[in-house]
Amino acid sequence: MQQSTDAMIIDCHGHYTTEPKQLIAFRQQQTAAAGGQGQAPARGSLTITDDEIRQTIEGAQLRLQRKRGIDVTLFSPRASGMGHDIGNAAVSLEWSQVSNELIHRVCGLFPRNFIGVCQLPQSPGVAPASCIDELTRCVSDFGFVGCNLNPDPSGGHWTSPPLTDRWWYPLYEKLVELDVPAMVHVSASCNPSFHTTGAHYLNADTTAFMQLLMSDLFKDFPTLRLIIPHGGGAVPYHWGRYRGIAQDQKRPPLTELMGDNVFFDTCVYHQPGIDLLARVVPARNVLFASEMLGAVKGIDPETGHHFDDTRRYIDALPLSDADKRGIFEDNARRVYPRINARLEKTGSV
Amino acid sequence: MQQSTDAMIIDCHGHYTTEPKQLIAFRQQQTAAAGGQGQAPARGSLTITDDEIRQTIEGAQLRLQRKRGIDVTLFSPRASGMGHDIGNAAVSLEWSQVSNELIHRVCGLFPRNFIGVCQLPQSPGVAPASCIDELTRCVSDFGFVGCNLNPDPSGGHWTSPPLTDRWWYPLYEKLVELDVPAMVHVSASCNPSFHTTGAHYLNADTTAFMQLLMSDLFKDFPTLRLIIPHGGGAVPYHWGRYRGIAQDQKRPPLTELMGDNVFFDTCVYHQPGIDLLARVVPARNVLFASEMLGAVKGIDPETGHHFDDTRRYIDALPLSDADKRGIFEDNARRVYPRINARLEKTGSV
Repeated sequence: MQQSTDAMIIDCHGHYTTEPKQLIAFRQQQTAAAGGQGQAPARGSLTITDDEIRQTIEGAQLRLQRKRGIDVTLFSPRASGMGHDIGNAAVSLEWSQVSNELIHRVCGLFPRNFIGVCQLPQSPGVAPASCIDELTRCVSDFGFVGCNLNPDPSGGHWTSPPLTDRWWYPLYEKLVELDVPAMVHVSASCNPSFHTTGAHYLNADTTAFMQLLMSDLFKDFPTLRLIIPHGGGAVPYHWGRYRGIAQDQKRPPLTELMGDNVFFDTCVYHQPGIDLLARVVPARNVLFASEMLGAVKGIDPETGHHFDDTRRYIDALPLSDADKRGIFEDNARRVYPRINARLEKTGSV
Repeated sequence: MQQSTDAMIIDCHGHYTTEPKQLIAFRQQQTAAAGGQGQAPARGSLTITDDEIRQTIEGAQLRLQRKRGIDVTLFSPRASGMGHDIGNAAVSLEWSQVSNELIHRVCGLFPRNFIGVCQLPQSPGVAPASCIDELTRCVSDFGFVGCNLNPDPSGGHWTSPPLTDRWWYPLYEKLVELDVPAMVHVSASCNPSFHTTGAHYLNADTTAFMQLLMSDLFKDFPTLRLIIPHGGGAVPYHWGRYRGIAQDQKRPPLTELMGDNVFFDTCVYHQPGIDLLARVVPARNVLFASEMLGAVKGIDPETGHHFDDTRRYIDALPLSDADKRGIFEDNARRVYPRINARLEKTGSV
């Protein structure tokens, strides 16, 4: 295990990508029924034992956490599996509830290692206010500390209003009231143009940032906090383009615009990319994350380490200890303030 | 003027963004008519004198070419103005012909400074084979050396098959036969989710690269050459992600995949971005470009120079003279072989 800092290492972006096969079977049956094939599965038919959950975690996320020296992961249902385009709002609600409850069980079994982040029961064309009850349940009843917000529930057709539209405001009001942030994260693409992890995810990040750049959303919600994952999509690479567009459009400088509202994670799977991120984006706007086991599972032949072992890239940065501590721990505590109580409870502080 | 190399400086990506106001009025009238408002304009009603063309160029692209030491620009109609989603195939054909003819006049008036690249008369749902006649006219009759190929003629709804689908093959066959490359470039977004220059352009670049990564297109067309502009969208920043996905999917290494078929331009408007590009992408796959006057028109307060004065960033790279010469000149001559004859004709060799 590397040790370049005494910070707690908080990975703000993990999904339950090793979910039990019963959950996958449940979803397949639910999806088929939504498409007119067969009966929807009864919720009670889904039985998963604690031991089965432990098995899916111990050899995967937990093993890699330990190997890489990650203390705790903010853990949510598989992003590509949210499938908000499938079925209708009722299907999405049931699937979200089932998925979130399973995350809650993982967090209960491994309270020092995982803190919950919820999937929202979004559905194309349905007002985001419909997600408030499930969000509240996850935060208030389960102790979750954030949510994943899909800017394109259609799955690659981009039929929803931009994130800066008042369409989303009731949900933002609840996020602010509960003091939890949202990670802007799409699900699988059902548009053949867009590869899910190689195009749609990154495009969504870029798209969301540009929507925020052109809007005064944070004047209406000064304490709303949004995390744009995958290192901010294309944004840091094109930082000059965005600085220039902001200037041409009489918008505030990007650092002011991001302020205490917009954050990028470190899911960028090579050293040159992380170097660029750290070179242009203020450290206080960067949160450590690896999204393992996620889009890229292999070992980089150039380094001998997993592509998604992002901690190594941060360790290698020529940043001050304070900045690294910010990226690994302090920024996450600020952006997701509810993790502080969770960590105190488990004695991890 | 800087001089770090004795190479000819070929800018492979310029649009006629200072087009005469008569052209804009023509298009407005044509667009209105396509939407059912008024009469379509008669083609003969569009009169622009040579002096008017000179005026639009001399104080703009030509002045900046000279100031920045750019020898020649591959010049095409305004990308955001292609508007393939407007009207139908007949509207698109007329607009493309008018736009290309104007580029031809610019190149005739300034033969040492501009070489033509054409707009294709694409239209959503219409087979790309419909573009072959106009492509052939521009290359054979006007001496153009390439074309812009829109992977999403719908303007942000992404309703076309991926670029790797056989849908596009007849056009690729003609490109190969004529020995001209295509720059993959979308037009303006009519989807409110996507800002044109801040999201749609970069998303399209990322999307196209990922389509190519997953396909054996270049086995079918070993000599087809595609330029992905804007520095390859998000790709170099996420080079590790793409290397990892390629490896997981048993695809060839990225450098092999790009080979003599896929190229990125240097329209990345800050030094850290260009540094990253040069660090991860082989120099032989990079073509100098600035896309001026384009998405970003201002001066970077951090440098005192225009954001889009990309030559400075290349000059500052720690590359060999041979690599810089490749980026500025040799790669463009290889990718757009028809420029050689053009340059000989004007004595610019």
